Amino acid sequence: MWRNIKQQTRNAVRFAAVAATAACLGSPALAQEQPAKVELSGGHVSQLQQIAQERGLNVDDLVAAAKTFTPSGKHDEYITFASGGHSGQIFVIGVPSMRQLRTIAVFTPEPWQGYGFGAGEHVLKGGDLDENHKIRWGDTHHPALSETNGEYDGQFLFIGDKANARIAVIDLKDFETKQILKNPITLSDHGCGFVTPNTDYIIEGGQYANPLGNTYAPIDQFKKAYRGMTTLWKFDRAKGRIDKDQSFAIELPPYHQDLFDAGKGASDGLLFGNSFNAEAAYGAIEKGEAPLEAAASQKDMDYLHVIDWKKAEQLVQAGKVEVINNFKVLRLDTAIKEGAIWFIPEPKSPHGVDVTPDGEFVIVSGKLDPHVTVYSTAKIKAAIASGKIASKDEYGVPVLDFDACKETQVEVGLGPLHTQFDDKGYAYTSLFLDSAICRWTLGGKLAKHGEQPWKVSGKAPMQYNIGHLVTAEGDSASPDGRFMIGMNKWSVDRFFQTGPLLPQNFQLVDISQGGDKMPVLYDLPIGNGEPHYAQMIKADKLKPFDVYPEVGWNPETGTVDPKAPMPGDEKVVKEADGKVHVYSTVIRSHFTPENVEVEEGDTVVWHLNNLEQAPDATHGFCIAGFNINLSLEPGEAQTIEFKADRAGTYPFYCTEFCSALHLEMMGYFQIKPKAAAQAK
Amino acid sequence: MWRNIKQQTRNAVRFAAVAATAACLGSPALAQEQPAKVELSGGHVSQLQQIAQERGLNVDDLVAAAKTFTPSGKHDEYITFASGGHSGQIFVIGVPSMRQLRTIAVFTPEPWQGYGFGAGEHVLKGGDLDENHKIRWGDTHHPALSETNGEYDGQFLFIGDKANARIAVIDLKDFETKQILKNPITLSDHGCGFVTPNTDYIIEGGQYANPLGNTYAPIDQFKKAYRGMTTLWKFDRAKGRIDKDQSFAIELPPYHQDLFDAGKGASDGLLFGNSFNAEAAYGAIEKGEAPLEAAASQKDMDYLHVIDWKKAEQLVQAGKVEVINNFKVLRLDTAIKEGAIWFIPEPKSPHGVDVTPDGEFVIVSGKLDPHVTVYSTAKIKAAIASGKIASKDEYGVPVLDFDACKETQVEVGLGPLHTQFDDKGYAYTSLFLDSAICRWTLGGKLAKHGEQPWKVSGKAPMQYNIGHLVTAEGDSASPDGRFMIGMNKWSVDRFFQTGPLLPQNFQLVDISQGGDKMPVLYDLPIGNGEPHYAQMIKADKLKPFDVYPEVGWNPETGTVDPKAPMPGDEKVVKEADGKVHVYSTVIRSHFTPENVEVEEGDTVVWHLNNLEQAPDATHGFCIAGFNINLSLEPGEAQTIEFKADRAGTYPFYCTEFCSALHLEMMGYFQIKPKAAAQAK
Repeated sequence: MWRNIKQQTRNAVRFAAVAATAACLGSPALAQEQPAKVELSGGHVSQLQQIAQERGLNVDDLVAAAKTFTPSGKHDEYITFASGGHSGQIFVIGVPSMRQLRTIAVFTPEPWQGYGFGAGEHVLKGGDLDENHKIRWGDTHHPALSETNGEYDGQFLFIGDKANARIAVIDLKDFETKQILKNPITLSDHGCGFVTPNTDYIIEGGQYANPLGNTYAPIDQFKKAYRGMTTLWKFDRAKGRIDKDQSFAIELPPYHQDLFDAGKGASDGLLFGNSFNAEAAYGAIEKGEAPLEAAASQKDMDYLHVIDWKKAEQLVQAGKVEVINNFKVLRLDTAIKEGAIWFIPEPKSPHGVDVTPDGEFVIVSGKLDPHVTVYSTAKIKAAIASGKIASKDEYGVPVLDFDACKETQVEVGLGPLHTQFDDKGYAYTSLFLDSAICRWTLGGKLAKHGEQPWKVSGKAPMQYNIGHLVTAEGDSASPDGRFMIGMNKWSVDRFFQTGPLLPQNFQLVDISQGGDKMPVLYDLPIGNGEPHYAQMIKADKLKPFDVYPEVGWNPETGTVDPKAPMPGDEKVVKEADGKVHVYSTVIRSHFTPENVEVEEGDTVVWHLNNLEQAPDATHGFCIAGFNINLSLEPGEAQTIEFKADRAGTYPFYCTEFCSALHLEMMGYFQIKPKAAAQAK
Repeated sequence: MWRNIKQQTRNAVRFAAVAATAACLGSPALAQEQPAKVELSGGHVSQLQQIAQERGLNVDDLVAAAKTFTPSGKHDEYITFASGGHSGQIFVIGVPSMRQLRTIAVFTPEPWQGYGFGAGEHVLKGGDLDENHKIRWGDTHHPALSETNGEYDGQFLFIGDKANARIAVIDLKDFETKQILKNPITLSDHGCGFVTPNTDYIIEGGQYANPLGNTYAPIDQFKKAYRGMTTLWKFDRAKGRIDKDQSFAIELPPYHQDLFDAGKGASDGLLFGNSFNAEAAYGAIEKGEAPLEAAASQKDMDYLHVIDWKKAEQLVQAGKVEVINNFKVLRLDTAIKEGAIWFIPEPKSPHGVDVTPDGEFVIVSGKLDPHVTVYSTAKIKAAIASGKIASKDEYGVPVLDFDACKETQVEVGLGPLHTQFDDKGYAYTSLFLDSAICRWTLGGKLAKHGEQPWKVSGKAPMQYNIGHLVTAEGDSASPDGRFMIGMNKWSVDRFFQTGPLLPQNFQLVDISQGGDKMPVLYDLPIGNGEPHYAQMIKADKLKPFDVYPEVGWNPETGTVDPKAPMPGDEKVVKEADGKVHVYSTVIRSHFTPENVEVEEGDTVVWHLNNLEQAPDATHGFCIAGFNINLSLEPGEAQTIEFKADRAGTYPFYCTEFCSALHLEMMGYFQIKPKAAAQAK
């Protein structure tokens, strides 16, 4: 009888698999061909009018609906990877449908993905301060797709944790986090990550200055003992991991560094980063002094940091570094002496720094200044080459002349934060205080807009208080235009009230028209985290696995696990390491073995192998009472280790609804009491 | 200067708040009035046709888009609370837009909500096995809204954790989890929760039989030593908490109880629950025997459990209980002897048991039987009253005659799981193996469909393998019809491939038409958990807070925290308890104090109070390196306690982007090394 049921289930799965194949062959092909002509009859028009009237929609709404609605089985054109802010995760969102396709667990354990509940521990441990100070969340801000020649290549994704100065590597073959590293010398970052044009390095810009090496120094020694930093993490693409030994940090003054961007094209080899506390102030409101928000906002100019990273790399390779906490640090004095760092004044409390697609210009938004400031790469290079230094900062960094480096300024509005680009030579700047986006014209070779350069072309409101914005392929050397997402900080009244904690919201904007015409096509609440930045890539650049390449696959090593049990290998055995090893196979709809008994005090190492090879045939594995849950995707093997320190009877079962007899996919894990075991 | 900035920020916020007020006054009112007539001109029609053609949409797609697209600022009509499966959470989804409005963290710590990273620890601890066995995830299956007279009242939400037999209470004033309780006698449940019609009790049906009290018993003593259970958790509505002392469990045979439903109307006072292992089998594939999926599927009939919960309550109040692990258990023998429990045969491996809105019928789906079986409440009561017992099961439970209790059977298709209802007397049953939904006609007083009763009326495919389904107000005494969501287990090819782990998917179905016409209006990927069941409530029944009622509000106690610091109260002081207490106020854009120094080894108790009163003015609070992050919503006070055991300098900052000077909202937490402190 149960074989019949299995057959039925298999048939159902086969049906699904066949449908999958058909769709894979069909859908993208259809998207290329001219689809059948759509004719709306008078009846259809009446029906649409009636629905619109009943639902309070207008004609623009119907158009927006048609531009975004993506029926079952049709896939999105673009995939957006958005940071999840203090959720610690990354959100994967389809464009134009604006559906959240998946969360990628990065810094925070997430049991649906089986991350941090038995599996993934090794990855998470990489981000701990030490054995006794585990960190199991993060504040993700800036996801960065890997690039080849300045173009997104769809292979890897990187993101930083602002709260603890950490960086993570995600492999886009399986959308899983493969590596987390703690920055050894500081405790906070912000501009992380941004990649160099061939992903040689991932840039981690610092944030709040700290005594380097995470030591104690009284706050009144701020200027003397505290330092900023930027870290260049060397990426080994073949291994898909950061090589910590080849990575290094650069010491910076305690100016609260903020966002960074790597030069490309004309500016390849340079790094640009800003900072918002040229006062090197700290707040002391508790002493009746000004809080930091005032103390750090006194000067009219802060410092745009310009770093020659290729020069810095040479200095590091030449051994001109100091080692702090086993990590190479290029000291500021060395960087200055060797000509690897310069500052340029930048207007007031800057936030975003964005290099144009051709690398010719660097755009800085001072959040307390209504302009964006456009710097010319050619002028910066000329200023450096000239050797003319306008001044030096308190820490001896040469400051280039503002006017010598500046191309122009464009008055965009209040609270400009970030700038993105399209395919016609328009730039788009988010305006936090104006709660709007501003479209303005670039000059130079990118200008294909037919308008005067460096002028405001249009403005459109956002609801409310936009932070970042992202355009399709917007950080690459060749942005696509068409779509922009405004990443708004306050939703207030946009959605149904879900208690005092409201979602952030993403507004998808059509930027394919001109001037002020930037209609909001879709308003997506983000109620599971606070995205800051995102990158949007053409979907067809991503080539993920549908199932793991071979049964027994270890997603962490990217190879078949030699200990992954195959059918016939199932057993429970005490091995030479003194631990009880359980070898289990997993297939619809049973585990083998179904009953596992150990003795109280045993250390258990459980090897599981999901033998399935059909797409979507994921199994879960949890043990009641043990804080363990795995997500075993088709072909995946996992090994967990735990102490059986509490006598009792613990059901284990498959947590992923896998077949009609899914509920029967369970067994019992028995821990025989020590007394009973000894009496044996 | 910084005051000007603050003013600008405040203006921006005021703008948002004004917009909010306007929308609150405007939108719902507009929804009531007849909106302006929508006229599509020839130009509009051409535009829609062109968009449709370019995007490969057909006319049905345009209609579905118009029925679901919800423009910025317009709110959804219904709110769906879906379980998050092994994510451990609940997802809040608007209907018809199908946007995920918010995740509610329940069993799994979630830092965006500040749950389990300093705050919420007390709630999470309620679900631990013991001090040394913390559980920080869950497998949520069945959310249950509180009811008054069988109608959803929008006040509370309950959900169980299948993996560890726990129950949680969520207050819909702020959408936060207020209580988690571990079931003291078992380690797994499934049918949790279902409420009695006035929420006197929340029902937790068991799942995998276990030795009661979580003890060890060898698997070969399964029939003798293992037992099922159902637990009735007494809800104290005034306190908004479960009263554990007034709660009790009922011992049941080891049949792997599954879903439950409380009677209502005609069946008020009864509980119905099913079970899928009348064989009382366990799998032993490791011994060459049949796995559980076969061993538990031998008999043609399992047992529908009928429990007189009002009788059981009387027995408990009369002290006829045994206490196991400090929890009242009504033993099976007592329940039998006192006439509180009966069985009725039910066809093969049942899954869903669903009481009709009037309580007249009980519908069981045997997942290995192509029928739904309809039992009549009147006939069950008559059979009980007659005293005629067809047989007794192995454990002495009286078994009523199947035919005497059965109203009818309807052949719906392969793999029927769950049944929901509409306002016309149709029932909707999900078919896992057919990957479809079946619409069929009820008989009795609810039949307003004008068709023959107990007949299949239509069928529609789902993509793929539907588990549960939910209709608008579908478990209440008066379902709304209109919308149904199919909660599908396999998405396979429906969305862009996000690695081997694919989302589940929700399909919104229009059930307002007739027969087979049940078009899918929207296909929503669920890529952050695996929902099992959901309930859908009219949005206007929910009356959440927009901000907390008073500044200094403690969300756990629902009162003002007397220790919440108000302006002027800010200080750092060692109190009589030997701990260093920090009193901080939080307001755009600074913390007071901004610098806090303690000595290595100090225990720190940090009291924070968000003074904001504008909706959406949430602040975060994290301390680098300490695994601490809070979400302080407007008016909210929180207290955290931790050991300052690692000397160093730790930035703290606001993790929620709150103003233009949000990045400046930070301070330093200093831990002076012990040596330095002693030398002082």
